[in-house]
Amino acid sequence: MPEAAAKTDAADEDRCITGIDGLDRILNGGIPRGNTVLITGSCGTGKTTLSFEFLLHGAMHNENGLFISVTENWKKLLKNVIPYSFFDNSLVKSKKLILIDLSSIYQKLGLEKEEFSMEDIDIIVKAVGDIVREWKIERLVIDSITSICFQLKTKEKIRDFILSMGKNLSDAGCTSILVSEISPGEQSYSMYGVEEAIADGIVLMANLERRGDLLRTLQVVKMRGTMHSRAKYVLDLTPVGVLLVPLLKGGSVAGGI
Amino acid sequence: MPEAAAKTDAADEDRCITGIDGLDRILNGGIPRGNTVLITGSCGTGKTTLSFEFLLHGAMHNENGLFISVTENWKKLLKNVIPYSFFDNSLVKSKKLILIDLSSIYQKLGLEKEEFSMEDIDIIVKAVGDIVREWKIERLVIDSITSICFQLKTKEKIRDFILSMGKNLSDAGCTSILVSEISPGEQSYSMYGVEEAIADGIVLMANLERRGDLLRTLQVVKMRGTMHSRAKYVLDLTPVGVLLVPLLKGGSVAGGI
Amino acid sequence: MPEAAAKTDAADEDRCITGIDGLDRILNGGIPRGNTVLITGSCGTGKTTLSFEFLLHGAMHNENGLFISVTENWKKLLKNVIPYSFFDNSLVKSKKLILIDLSSIYQKLGLEKEEFSMEDIDIIVKAVGDIVREWKIERLVIDSITSICFQLKTKEKIRDFILSMGKNLSDAGCTSILVSEISPGEQSYSMYGVEEAIADGIVLMANLERRGDLLRTLQVVKMRGTMHSRAKYVLDLTPVGVLLVPLLKGGSVAGGI
Amino acid sequence: MPEAAAKTDAADEDRCITGIDGLDRILNGGIPRGNTVLITGSCGTGKTTLSFEFLLHGAMHNENGLFISVTENWKKLLKNVIPYSFFDNSLVKSKKLILIDLSSIYQKLGLEKEEFSMEDIDIIVKAVGDIVREWKIERLVIDSITSICFQLKTKEKIRDFILSMGKNLSDAGCTSILVSEISPGEQSYSMYGVEEAIADGIVLMANLERRGDLLRTLQVVKMRGTMHSRAKYVLDLTPVGVLLVPLLKGGSVAGGI
Amino acid sequence: MPEAAAKTDAADEDRCITGIDGLDRILNGGIPRGNTVLITGSCGTGKTTLSFEFLLHGAMHNENGLFISVTENWKKLLKNVIPYSFFDNSLVKSKKLILIDLSSIYQKLGLEKEEFSMEDIDIIVKAVGDIVREWKIERLVIDSITSICFQLKTKEKIRDFILSMGKNLSDAGCTSILVSEISPGEQSYSMYGVEEAIADGIVLMANLERRGDLLRTLQVVKMRGTMHSRAKYVLDLTPVGVLLVPLLKGGSVAGGI
Amino acid sequence: MPEAAAKTDAADEDRCITGIDGLDRILNGGIPRGNTVLITGSCGTGKTTLSFEFLLHGAMHNENGLFISVTENWKKLLKNVIPYSFFDNSLVKSKKLILIDLSSIYQKLGLEKEEFSMEDIDIIVKAVGDIVREWKIERLVIDSITSICFQLKTKEKIRDFILSMGKNLSDAGCTSILVSEISPGEQSYSMYGVEEAIADGIVLMANLERRGDLLRTLQVVKMRGTMHSRAKYVLDLTPVGVLLVPLLKGGSVAGGI
Repeated sequence: MPEAAAKTDAADEDRCITGIDGLDRILNGGIPRGNTVLITGSCGTGKTTLSFEFLLHGAMHNENGLFISVTENWKKLLKNVIPYSFFDNSLVKSKKLILIDLSSIYQKLGLEKEEFSMEDIDIIVKAVGDIVREWKIERLVIDSITSICFQLKTKEKIRDFILSMGKNLSDAGCTSILVSEISPGEQSYSMYGVEEAIADGIVLMANLERRGDLLRTLQVVKMRGTMHSRAKYVLDLTPVGVLLVPLLKGGSVAGGI
Repeated sequence: MPEAAAKTDAADEDRCITGIDGLDRILNGGIPRGNTVLITGSCGTGKTTLSFEFLLHGAMHNENGLFISVTENWKKLLKNVIPYSFFDNSLVKSKKLILIDLSSIYQKLGLEKEEFSMEDIDIIVKAVGDIVREWKIERLVIDSITSICFQLKTKEKIRDFILSMGKNLSDAGCTSILVSEISPGEQSYSMYGVEEAIADGIVLMANLERRGDLLRTLQVVKMRGTMHSRAKYVLDLTPVGVLLVPLLKGGSVAGGI
Repeated sequence: MPEAAAKTDAADEDRCITGIDGLDRILNGGIPRGNTVLITGSCGTGKTTLSFEFLLHGAMHNENGLFISVTENWKKLLKNVIPYSFFDNSLVKSKKLILIDLSSIYQKLGLEKEEFSMEDIDIIVKAVGDIVREWKIERLVIDSITSICFQLKTKEKIRDFILSMGKNLSDAGCTSILVSEISPGEQSYSMYGVEEAIADGIVLMANLERRGDLLRTLQVVKMRGTMHSRAKYVLDLTPVGVLLVPLLKGGSVAGGI
Repeated sequence: MPEAAAKTDAADEDRCITGIDGLDRILNGGIPRGNTVLITGSCGTGKTTLSFEFLLHGAMHNENGLFISVTENWKKLLKNVIPYSFFDNSLVKSKKLILIDLSSIYQKLGLEKEEFSMEDIDIIVKAVGDIVREWKIERLVIDSITSICFQLKTKEKIRDFILSMGKNLSDAGCTSILVSEISPGEQSYSMYGVEEAIADGIVLMANLERRGDLLRTLQVVKMRGTMHSRAKYVLDLTPVGVLLVPLLKGGSVAGGI
Repeated sequence: MPEAAAKTDAADEDRCITGIDGLDRILNGGIPRGNTVLITGSCGTGKTTLSFEFLLHGAMHNENGLFISVTENWKKLLKNVIPYSFFDNSLVKSKKLILIDLSSIYQKLGLEKEEFSMEDIDIIVKAVGDIVREWKIERLVIDSITSICFQLKTKEKIRDFILSMGKNLSDAGCTSILVSEISPGEQSYSMYGVEEAIADGIVLMANLERRGDLLRTLQVVKMRGTMHSRAKYVLDLTPVGVLLVPLLKGGSVAGGI
Repeated sequence: MPEAAAKTDAADEDRCITGIDGLDRILNGGIPRGNTVLITGSCGTGKTTLSFEFLLHGAMHNENGLFISVTENWKKLLKNVIPYSFFDNSLVKSKKLILIDLSSIYQKLGLEKEEFSMEDIDIIVKAVGDIVREWKIERLVIDSITSICFQLKTKEKIRDFILSMGKNLSDAGCTSILVSEISPGEQSYSMYGVEEAIADGIVLMANLERRGDLLRTLQVVKMRGTMHSRAKYVLDLTPVGVLLVPLLKGGSVAGGI
């Protein structure tokens, strides 16, 4: 980890600890507070689970979390997280962790259209910002930004949306994860190619075929405001949550550790 | 199978046992009930046969099944399944297994158009939901979702269709398989790239050239609500139905079990 | 041929014997009667010759054949088949083998347009069906379906055309070959990507460079209603017709035969 | 040359001998008379030189030739052929070899448009046919068909053009070469992908990097009406004309002949 | 470094020293003054950090610098640079280093549109030129040009914009860096393919996987007005700034220094 | 150089000697007079330098040269050539070498549009032809043709432009170089794919990674009117100008001269 040198103890206060084994070490202490991080990968690479664990870890340590579900009903989503031992439903009941469907926000705003205008973007960003401030949210996940982009359509509007959303959240002191869906085999970090340029960080989650098995991998491609490793890690979805192991120690090379 | 640890006996009740040799083991007991699973692959990879065996296994164990045929007449389709020893025509006669052509549903609904609107989607989803509830269907197969997508055309509408269809079926306690057709060599899991993001599970069926032969393979890329293996298996279409063998034991590597 | 087990003698009656050395063995007795088979490949891979031999073999055994020529005048086409020893012109004279240009059908129907409508498709399908019934055709070849698709243009209409054509022919007890043209190096089985999903069978004909030579290969990717080998065969166009040899015995691996 | 068996002496009369060393042997005696052959390749692969030598060989043996120049002025083109020892200007003077610019035909027909209609195609085809008949042309070269396709634009019209041109020429007993330009690295045999399906023969000319040099290669992919080798040959443009050497004897493999 | 021969001491006066370890040596003394350099690469390759260090080095040596932030608020950007030891905030305070958001320039000019016209381009170029002259700017960074291109849309306008911007800046004696964003795996040097043809220099920043790690690389593809190395260097983002090491000495080849 | 045999001393008079070390030998004496040569390659491959040296060599030997600068101001361009020892400014002063910006020609002709018509093309070609005749230009460079193509837009117009420009220049006895810009990794010889079909010669300039370095290479793909080597050469931009070395002797293979 040759980029780790400049870290001081003081820096820790400015970090949002993910609580995910390995990731905080990769990031040299966690995500810099206020950053907007794009977690990008194809289906089944563990984006939602990792994002959820990030929120739960915060909620357990008294940082309010907000999960905005875009592609599906949050209740169904929750059901899939329950089996993990890191899940604690009392956090949901006590409102330390709030789950909302974006469609319900759209409904309240009267924004049920096929394509959003620049003005609509401002309204949505403000609405999310209001929720974040009202509930003192410190950690936010939008799963996924890609589904929102379908309704924005132009690169210009996508850029504006992520930019003003990111600024609004950052101003509110909120650390955010935007989940991005890409096709397997896709070389880009996002579907429209602009999402990644605006994000403060990019975490790439991918599949890796090895000896007939399909491993999950994680790689921090970029993270503003911190030194970090850019090595590829193998990601395991275990009952106790996400676990990261350096790729070289993942079984394919003898004499590891 | 390092992801299998958290499974308890109680979980079995929540599983929809496919009855396909190997697949239930891969899925750690079967498909989580209420899940919408995308079975995706190019022509001739065995998608329809596997889906049919899934329905028949349920029907034999008193779970009503519904096969909605989109690309062709269900009667012709049935003819191709009859040679399999797992087929039992009495299940069709006793209405434990119901086969419908989607075109006949369209006809009843007066929906014979080139492109569907959002409202049409609601009508179709409701119609399918009504059939599921009326006949107490617990297992559903739509073969294929891709043909429906041709008439939906935009990613937005495809997303909405799969989402509301999935929710409707899940609410009715029905476990569903959506067959997705992709081109051989296609890297994506679906033709429009959005189908996979909404599904609870993705089963990838593919071809693999080995020593001049064209093997069929199966891989569970994602399955919400259960730990599962992500390894690639060789799939054989035998007279007794679908059979799965780990790729490494498939003949190419000596010394297997 | 591990998929051959379920075959019984009785099944033979339901098979349309192609008469092509090796292909009937690959198909475990021939093409299941009533099937619509897509023969797909780039230029010069032998699609037309194989299709023609299929028709001639039928005609010689008292099964009437119809060759619908789409891309060019059937008279010119015939000239190219004459050198083959399997060709017997008396079959053409005795109307056991009928050759028609699609353009002449279009002319009779008054359908000389740049793009066909859904209604036009119905008219064409009915016209072909009428010919099949009138002349008691049991084997049909359309060479090529791709040229027709140029005038259908949308995936929707192509799907409808192949579907209703296939159903009409199958109802008439006719076994059909649809020739599909793809570019060399094309990964898909057809130009529009929908043709293959509707066909009952897919026979892939391709080129294979080996030691500076350009071999022709044949592979049955899919065939509904029969167990079949999916191995790749080398195809030779010999004076006595199409000849198939397993790829491994084709000269590249020692110790064959 | 395993496909050569069926050839008889009588067949020679039906062959159009190209006079190009090696090519006639590959084609088992020459191009079947009346065939329309697509010679396809990227820039600098020798398409024009080979086509010209084909015409000159005919003219020397009393078969009138017509070269229709599409991309540039035939006078300039001629200048580039003069250095070859096979060129004999008296053949041009005695009208055994006629050179015309397509633009001059367009001018006479009053067809100076950006896009041609179906009717325009008929007019052009008839005009070329008239020249062929008037001058008793037995060999024709159009260099290149690709430039004409730019003005036809749709696959439908290109198909119709090549089809009716080919039929017209074939009816007049004329053997024709259509030069097709593709990009280097292009997998298809033509720019629009339909040209090759209609041609009776495809001769693929390409580049091959070997030890830092850029060899020219020739391969007969398809030729209706004759058995032929499909092996890849190295093509040399020597002062005495086109020369073909089997690839394996081209210097890269020891112990040849 | 075989291209370095012609360099004379006098030339140094015409060079804009980047202050980045290794880069000045690669460039044989620095960027030729007045050049417009495209720094191109995907996310996380260090484009912004390198550009910033270039500005800071100038400011420390009394050359005024201007950073025009396009994709995001410059204040946020600044925060990410602060940890680097090369950063000296007094340079910002003393206006040796000026940071502006392009959006604020747009606002002043009343140019808040979705697409810019040729006239708008002239207005923007003039406005930037005025700032450069007013503040005696000698080093300029626009981060990124790609976001501006989204609003120019046609290759024609992008070409005109970069051309007239470059000319205006060069006339003012200003050395400029235009940051260009490309997708990972992209072969081109820019998103629209025209940006690179107009720039005086191209510095390609990329990722390179090696033993599971993701190295950053830098390569000077082109630089008008100077001999330069075109070798690939490994780029490290260290607390003291950008550091370049020849790729062969980067750890993968034994026997390095 | 197996293609060099037919060359006679007399031929030298018909050659335009480039003066570039190695290139004249590759071309067997130089570019055939009156040829229009496409020099194609991505950024930084040395196209402009090579073209300039070609002009300067002519000017020094009393052949007037014209450089039409399309992408940028010729004064800036000149600055970049001055460091080369082959540059002699007196040739510019004495009008042996004339430099013009295409934009100034456009201005005079009143042709400042976004898209040119066929008529505009005629006007531009005539204007260039007039300059060539008035100043007795024997060597011309247009840098780059690609920028002009942006304003022609259709393949038809690009073809017409290059064709009539080439004819006009050839009629005037002028040997011309058209610089073509392609993306790195691009397989085609030009952006629109038609430029190369019309040119008399194609010189491909590319990059080649070798041991971490980025070599420049040159390859004469096609040259009408002369035998030539088609081997790949390494190109060095040295202070004394362009230098060509056969690739195999470029350092990667031992035992070279």
